[in-house]
Formats: sequence, C-alpha cells, structure tokens
Amino acid sequence: MHEFVPPQRLLLGPGPSMVHPRVLQAMSVPLLGHLDPAFLAVMNDIQTLLRQVFATTNRFTIAISGTGSAGMEASIVNLVEPGDAVVVGVNGVFGTRLATVVERCGGKAIRVEAPWGQIIEPDAIEAALQRSGPVKAVALVHAETSTGAWQPIDAIGRFCRNHNALFIVDAVTSLGGVPVEVDEWGIDVCYSGTQKCLSCPPGLAPFTMSERALATIKQRRTPCQSWYLDMGLIADYWAEGSRAYHHTAPISMLYALREALRLVEEEGLSARFARHQLNSAALVAGLMALGLAPLPPVGHRLPMLTCVTVPTHIDEAAVRSQLLHTFGIEIGGGLGPLKGKVWRIGLMGESCAEANVLTLLNALEEIGIRSGWVSTPGVALQAAARTYSRIH
Amino acid sequence: MHEFVPPQRLLLGPGPSMVHPRVLQAMSVPLLGHLDPAFLAVMNDIQTLLRQVFATTNRFTIAISGTGSAGMEASIVNLVEPGDAVVVGVNGVFGTRLATVVERCGGKAIRVEAPWGQIIEPDAIEAALQRSGPVKAVALVHAETSTGAWQPIDAIGRFCRNHNALFIVDAVTSLGGVPVEVDEWGIDVCYSGTQKCLSCPPGLAPFTMSERALATIKQRRTPCQSWYLDMGLIADYWAEGSRAYHHTAPISMLYALREALRLVEEEGLSARFARHQLNSAALVAGLMALGLAPLPPVGHRLPMLTCVTVPTHIDEAAVRSQLLHTFGIEIGGGLGPLKGKVWRIGLMGESCAEANVLTLLNALEEIGIRSGWVSTPGVALQAAARTYSRIH
Repeated sequence: MHEFVPPQRLLLGPGPSMVHPRVLQAMSVPLLGHLDPAFLAVMNDIQTLLRQVFATTNRFTIAISGTGSAGMEASIVNLVEPGDAVVVGVNGVFGTRLATVVERCGGKAIRVEAPWGQIIEPDAIEAALQRSGPVKAVALVHAETSTGAWQPIDAIGRFCRNHNALFIVDAVTSLGGVPVEVDEWGIDVCYSGTQKCLSCPPGLAPFTMSERALATIKQRRTPCQSWYLDMGLIADYWAEGSRAYHHTAPISMLYALREALRLVEEEGLSARFARHQLNSAALVAGLMALGLAPLPPVGHRLPMLTCVTVPTHIDEAAVRSQLLHTFGIEIGGGLGPLKGKVWRIGLMGESCAEANVLTLLNALEEIGIRSGWVSTPGVALQAAARTYSRIH
Repeated sequence: MHEFVPPQRLLLGPGPSMVHPRVLQAMSVPLLGHLDPAFLAVMNDIQTLLRQVFATTNRFTIAISGTGSAGMEASIVNLVEPGDAVVVGVNGVFGTRLATVVERCGGKAIRVEAPWGQIIEPDAIEAALQRSGPVKAVALVHAETSTGAWQPIDAIGRFCRNHNALFIVDAVTSLGGVPVEVDEWGIDVCYSGTQKCLSCPPGLAPFTMSERALATIKQRRTPCQSWYLDMGLIADYWAEGSRAYHHTAPISMLYALREALRLVEEEGLSARFARHQLNSAALVAGLMALGLAPLPPVGHRLPMLTCVTVPTHIDEAAVRSQLLHTFGIEIGGGLGPLKGKVWRIGLMGESCAEANVLTLLNALEEIGIRSGWVSTPGVALQAAARTYSRIH
C-alpha cells in the first residue's frame, strides 16, 4: 500500500471546506499529553476564541470530541430526559435529525414543519409553544445545509423565555459565516462543526451552553444516557482548577482548531461575514444567468450554502461528476427528497473567494456549452463580474 | 494570540504516544470531501489494514469518529437494550466505566470484580454466566490502562458461546502492542483507540464487529439510543456500494490512521509485539533496581503500560513534575484509588524504543540521587542493559 497523495480538489460542497495551509501545518507538530500544562493552555485559548465567534460570555464554551452531529446529540441528550417535550423546526435533513435524536432519548418531539427550502415562521414556533403543555426546549437549525434556508433566530429566544423553555440552536454551517449572537439572541445551547465556515478539518464540534442550561443539567432526575457526551463530566476536564480526566482529547485536531480560530480573529468577524455576502451574491448572479435559481426565497438564502434547483433538461449527477473528474471541483448533490433535484454549492470560510466563484461558474459554463444547456459563453461570468463591480 | 509551538516532550504516559513524522505529515495534506471516490479509497485501505491488526475477516471493521471511549459507548449502546444483563469485569477505571455505560443505556451490569492490579479470573466469568439468567454479553478490558493488568481473553469467547452471550473486548491499549485475535478468540465486538500502540493522534476508535453482533443489532426491539454512534446507520456509509451520508468523516484523522497502519504493516505485527516485550522487560528490570515494583503480578503485566507502586518515601507528584519540567518526559499518575500511589509508564508504539527506556531510567536515577532515594548511580541503567544484552 502506497503513500496517500490526494488529488487536487477545490472544495465547494456542503463541507469540508478548504483548509488554510497554516491550519494544515498546525496539525503536523508533535503531540502533547492531554493533561500537559502547555496543552491546557491551548484549550484555554480555544475557549477564549470560541467565545468570540459565538458572541457569548458563557463559561462553558468548548470543543466536543466528535463532528457537528456529536454536537447535536450532546445538546439533546444532556438537556432532554424521558418524557420531556421539545419543539423542533423541521424543514430539511438536519431538523429531521434533531427530532429523531430527541425521540431516541425518550423525549417527545413536537414538529413544526415547513416545506424544504422554506424557513420555519417564528410565529409558528410561538404558536406551538402556546398550544403545547410544558416544553423543555425549542430546537432550530440556523443554517439548514440540506436546503440553503437561513432561519431567523433572533426573536425566538424571547418566546422561549416566556414559556420557560431552553433554546437550542444548530449553527453547524452558520458559525463564522454569518452572525451567531448566542447571548444577544438568548440561545441556551449552540453547537457547530469545524469543517464549514471555520475552515478547520472535520472532527470537532464547537459547543457553548448558558448557565441556565448548566443548571438544568445539574437538576436532572436521570443520568445522561451518553457517557461520552456527558457535559457534566466533560465540564470537569475543561474547567480550570479541576482538569479531571474524562477521555483523551483529540490533540492534533485541537491544534488545528486553535489555528483556524486565530485566522478568523485576524480577519475579523464583520469582514468575514461581508466576504461571505459578497461572494455569495456574485455566485447567485452567475447561477441565475445560467437559469439556476436558488431554492429558498429571496431574503432567506444562506450566503455560505447555495442550494439551486437543477432544471430537468440538465443531467444533475453527470454535471457533478464532470466538475469533479474534469475540473477537480466538488459541489454537493441533494439529500432525501431533494436527491437528484438540486446542487448544493458551498462558499465557506477559505472556500469563499472570488477566484473560486469564477472558477466554478466558468466550469459550469463550459460543461453547459458542451451539453447544450448554455448558449452564450461568458454569461455567468459577466453576471458575477457585474455584481463584484457593483458591490466592491 | 501567537502561533502555538509545543514544548519538546517524550511521551511515556498512558497515551497519547509519540507519533511518527510520516503520520504528522499525512495530516498536513489538503482535504478531500467525505464522499470523494479518492477518499472512499482511503477508507477501504483503512478497513483492510485494520482487519490485519484485529486479526479478523469481519466485514464490519471501521474507525469510529471519536476517541476510544466513543468506541466503548458504541459497543454497548448498539448491543444492549433496556433490561439486558451484561457481565462486566471490573478491576480498574475502564471496567468500571464499562459497567456505567451499560447502566446508562438501561442494561443490568453484573460486575465480576477483582482488586485493582489483578486480572479477572476466567473461571469467575464462567461462574457468573452460570449463576445468572440470560446474559446478553460479556464485556472485558484486555489491557486495563489504569493498573497495567493484562487480562486473559482467549478462553472466554467459548464460555460466551456456550451461554449464547456476545463477547465485547476493550482493546484500547492493547491493539498493535500485543496480539488481539478477534476471530480466533471468538470476540464479537472489539474497539480500540488510535493514540496508544498504533501511534496515531487521538480522535478515532478502531472498531470491529462479527456477523453475530450485526445480526443482534438488526433484531433490536428499540432504536439505538445514540444516533451518532448507531452502527446500523454508520454501516451504510462504510459499505461499498452504499456510501450513504451519515456524518462528515474526520478526513485528516483518517489520513493519519492510514499512515500509522501502514507503519504497523511495514514493521510486521510479530516484530512489533517482540519490540514491546523487549523494551518492557528492560524497563521493568531498571525500575525494580530502583525499588519500584509493578502492581500486577508476574505473568499478568502489560508490556506497553507498566504501573509501578511508588513507595511512600518518594514524592510521587514531585517526581512526575520534575520529569516533565526538567527532562521533558511525560509519565502518568494514578487514577481513582491509585491516585498518588502509582506511576503509569507507557511504552506504546513509537514511544516503545530502547533510547526512551534508557532516557527515562537515567532521569529517574538523577532525580532519585538528588532526592536521596537512589544511592548507586547507574543501577537502573545497568539492569536495563543486562536485560537488553540477554534478550538481544
């Protein structure tokens, strides 16, 4: 078996995104023990930097040793006990998954549904809270990666407070690409993944929890069903002064996250958000010029993940295959009911750059011209260029 | 916040172990998407190489996206349903943890206990099977990292078959350092960690499961309480032909594991086991010359993890601190009831080398001479050298 040398890829799918050479480099330095004072300092740095991107002062702000889905599971299994009701917004794969996770730990999922591609109307959440009995939590996906819908979050924390419910937000795809205001929006638990807008390899789930959520955990009637994701135990490892061994932290991944967060800090959050908006606008302009319209309505489209409907005269899978094998570009296909019907194009973190937008549009045009569904060369590039010149 | 540059450390604790530069290098290459055909080939390679180290033909042989503790949890939550009885050997931290995990998913843990440092007598397992009603599984820790005890495993698979119980083995610390014969010993589920004798950074749990265990999962009455660790779903991602998205695989960590396993294959398992035996024998000879006796009895001492009792005239924590801060050497302290009473010295994978044994013994001697508990300089080094010359 030979040394592995990956083919060159431009990662413009739903994640992982491109990783900065400094982050790759950070993973290649020698390891420390997970209780070494020099490593504990790395953990402290990560906590400080994560609080900035989550816009929170939450003491309990850590990186979970698993991917974003582990963050989702951790948020539910720690707060929800058998019989607890949870209002869950379901308008795509990840809302569906949230409801499943609630049910797997014995909770009752009260689904507030919307068509895939649409948002969950905040009023519908409030209505669900009003007509249900006591509700333990409301759980919503901020950036629904399966549809590209951008869920309004800011009003919902207040509804939750009024009904004495905790507020859980999935920010896997949004964190670092659009504002995630944990404290301002009254979010009690927020989790993310590293491989999206933070541009770190997958493997960790940034996670933050309010004092209110921590108090709920302390008052549990039953132990958390997961030992690995038991935040009561994990708190003792991340807490300065305690540092009790729980499991061996993924040292190299945490090195990578620290460096990725340093890059976020250097750019600044508002510059980073503006970059995501700009490149997304240019991408959408180019795609529209090719007859590819985003699935979510105007005003509810994520900048870092554009989900476009593929017209039936275009062979969806064949184009993705050509992009990958001829141009070395990865974009995503649809999941579940959207399989074969959409493309999901990610402009996340390091992947979100003008050169990448132009490269992708050019490749799509070339494929479209060869296949007959594009007639005017340069039409997409021109639309993108106009957008750049208007906004720049 | 500055670039992180780790201090130089010789990792001779209970893990992580030293990582070969080729493995560090493997993590620094650009990422691929988790559904990219080139990445799926990496997964296939890992499966092939893992089957070799587990000595199994099990189709279901994968790396779980979490540390060894996630492997433990996965083995239990997939096989054990509420009300199921599991016989668990408890003679250290990790057996204790296994019993806890069984109880957290509603199972009944039948504890077969032994003093810390001792093995669980195989007859005691058989007796427990005989006096209990139906038992779903027997779970044992092969290498108890908290005590250095080397549990006999080979006879127990037969007892399990006779009583129609599944056999779960924790090989976190043993895999790649001593034989782990999954098929030969009739093990149904075996999990490990990457940061011990495989000398890969922490973050993944190698995991293998027999057809019998898979059939048990298919016949569950209730869904697996963990979505993240649901092997029924994860099987669909690792299975060629299916490759259904479950969660985003930790790409860079899997690159690292592939390279670490390539190094294991290049050395050969029997040469690797002999290396662990040799260096362990020299270490123990040196430690005995310093008056430091291993906790487990002769015949039941792990080669990759030596747990020695620290006499009361030696300041346990002060020595570890001097080793770390003056000599840059990490060794482990005791856990639970052994806290302050033992040192745990790891010679795992890349850490297991003659130079490291001599370096550690020399540092211990220097500290001991300064503190007055060693009187004859070179006594430990001489004992180690004699062992090397006798065995070489």
